[in-house]
Amino acid sequence: MIHRIGANTIGFEEMPSIIGSFGIAGKLEAQGPLAECFDKIIYDSYNGKDTYEQAESNLQSEAVSGALNKAGVSAEEVDYIFAGDLLNQCIGSSYGLIGFEIPYLGQYGACSTMAQGLIMSAVYVESGAARVATCVTSSHFCSAERQYRFPLEYGGVRTPTAQWTVTGAGSCVVKNVKKGPCIARATVGKITDLGVKDANNMGAAMAPAAARTLKEFFQDTSTKPNDYDLILTGDLGLVGSRLLYDLLKLEGIDIRNRHNDCGLMIYDRNSQDVHAGGSGCGCAGSVFCSKILSEMRAGKLNNILFMATGALMSPTSSGQGASIPSIAHLLNIKNRL
Amino acid sequence: MIHRIGANTIGFEEMPSIIGSFGIAGKLEAQGPLAECFDKIIYDSYNGKDTYEQAESNLQSEAVSGALNKAGVSAEEVDYIFAGDLLNQCIGSSYGLIGFEIPYLGQYGACSTMAQGLIMSAVYVESGAARVATCVTSSHFCSAERQYRFPLEYGGVRTPTAQWTVTGAGSCVVKNVKKGPCIARATVGKITDLGVKDANNMGAAMAPAAARTLKEFFQDTSTKPNDYDLILTGDLGLVGSRLLYDLLKLEGIDIRNRHNDCGLMIYDRNSQDVHAGGSGCGCAGSVFCSKILSEMRAGKLNNILFMATGALMSPTSSGQGASIPSIAHLLNIKNRL
Repeated sequence: MIHRIGANTIGFEEMPSIIGSFGIAGKLEAQGPLAECFDKIIYDSYNGKDTYEQAESNLQSEAVSGALNKAGVSAEEVDYIFAGDLLNQCIGSSYGLIGFEIPYLGQYGACSTMAQGLIMSAVYVESGAARVATCVTSSHFCSAERQYRFPLEYGGVRTPTAQWTVTGAGSCVVKNVKKGPCIARATVGKITDLGVKDANNMGAAMAPAAARTLKEFFQDTSTKPNDYDLILTGDLGLVGSRLLYDLLKLEGIDIRNRHNDCGLMIYDRNSQDVHAGGSGCGCAGSVFCSKILSEMRAGKLNNILFMATGALMSPTSSGQGASIPSIAHLLNIKNRL
Repeated sequence: MIHRIGANTIGFEEMPSIIGSFGIAGKLEAQGPLAECFDKIIYDSYNGKDTYEQAESNLQSEAVSGALNKAGVSAEEVDYIFAGDLLNQCIGSSYGLIGFEIPYLGQYGACSTMAQGLIMSAVYVESGAARVATCVTSSHFCSAERQYRFPLEYGGVRTPTAQWTVTGAGSCVVKNVKKGPCIARATVGKITDLGVKDANNMGAAMAPAAARTLKEFFQDTSTKPNDYDLILTGDLGLVGSRLLYDLLKLEGIDIRNRHNDCGLMIYDRNSQDVHAGGSGCGCAGSVFCSKILSEMRAGKLNNILFMATGALMSPTSSGQGASIPSIAHLLNIKNRL
């Protein structure tokens, strides 16, 4: 059963395990520092399809297939799949996953979706609703640029605070086997908005949500940053990470010697023109599902916090002058060797 | 705890109750047959706001406030809120719900969201993750037309199979109190696509998903249509309902003397120019959360199936020539007087 910890956190008594995972990335990511870590690289931005959106759907289906394979589980054995992405109406997910015929629960958490899907998987498995659950998310630079900013041919110039949407996907398979990386606790975020309106500065928009959820988790669990091997955020990037440190400092919390961010890990900002770093659902998805979980399985990481953040605006809301509300979902993942 | 029933259905041993609900509708709906049933009518399409999207967000916040009030529960007592809508990036939900400060899990099931949110609420309450959970969804004719079809000023002509997006919202509060309308069983749908490409015929696109989920539920539970007082669909409308009957007939299942559809109930198709009937997340949301639950509380309905369907395409996928995948989620709701 699940029990409540403090005001906002839940603990999983069985601690469902991540029994398989798969992280896919694209060409630019393959030129970055984590090139050797991804389970698969897809160099063609169309991935053999006619459109970028279809390519993104294909990233999802490849990620799920890979994760199921690694887990030694067939699609028929999966009771639920939790999926979402950045495309309008989450078509990356719906079209990508038809073929698996797994009961489907679409999620929308923007770039927090990797964490949201893992929380969903853990709750459904722990509750008995699912024997096996799967989650997946994706993003694609080209489909995201077209939808959120400009078609590539426009040659729009990006601001220094802008981040580069990762072409990538990540999927995990969750089952209660009492070994390997296990989901111990989770904190679901609250929508947080400190009035940032600049849609080219997602880091600033999301940092407040990240600070809030982290603070709630530490308070609820009476733990502190140094209790964990790693505090990993999804895609705060350079600006968001620095602002997170500033916001936490106001609360007397210092995570700097434990923190890393998938958006800062996935590219080499010195040689790759990605400005403030990587972003997108596939940023946390690809990095967490490959590098991070591999390090856990190897015993290099044993007790981590994984928190992905999402900006909940749309081009329409920004165009109407609204500020950018955000959310951050957190999991405490422990290793049972 | 939750137990599995057959291949695709789950049963809730505690059977979480819907302790409060609120259905809101707009001007056209107030001119229809259910005018007296809604908890609130909002006549102004802008609802005092500057844009239709802000008006839709406001529908959500009003629905949640109303449901909490009916339930006798404050926002602080709610552990999770599950919400989604049809707007890109679900901004109806995110902007509408900021003020409640409830841990937020965005859902995307298109017009199936009312059922999806209820399933989520039931799982989270039954599992112990939540003492109280809330779900909400909305749609708005004007915001939907602009995003999915044309701005109103364009004066686009609708096809006979087209449906009218309801301006409305519905919210439920779920808690384990062992009385009133309770969630007994649920079947999460699988993405289903029989190749319908006509985005002006959502009923045809969604009927296959509805037939599939219903068939799975009946098989898993070894029950039949006449075991239930009502088999309520969300927004299949005229075309979708007829196609559902045809598809079920191929399986030897006849629901016609138990079936009704929120999209057919909410408007008078003889006097209101809505073509094939109502649609949108707020269609099922407003009707289920007002009329249907009221009838349950009054003992007029005691054992129902509520199944909402969603079409998972976007204007982009349709523009790229893709067919329309759909999904249907079902709950069996029983009365404990």
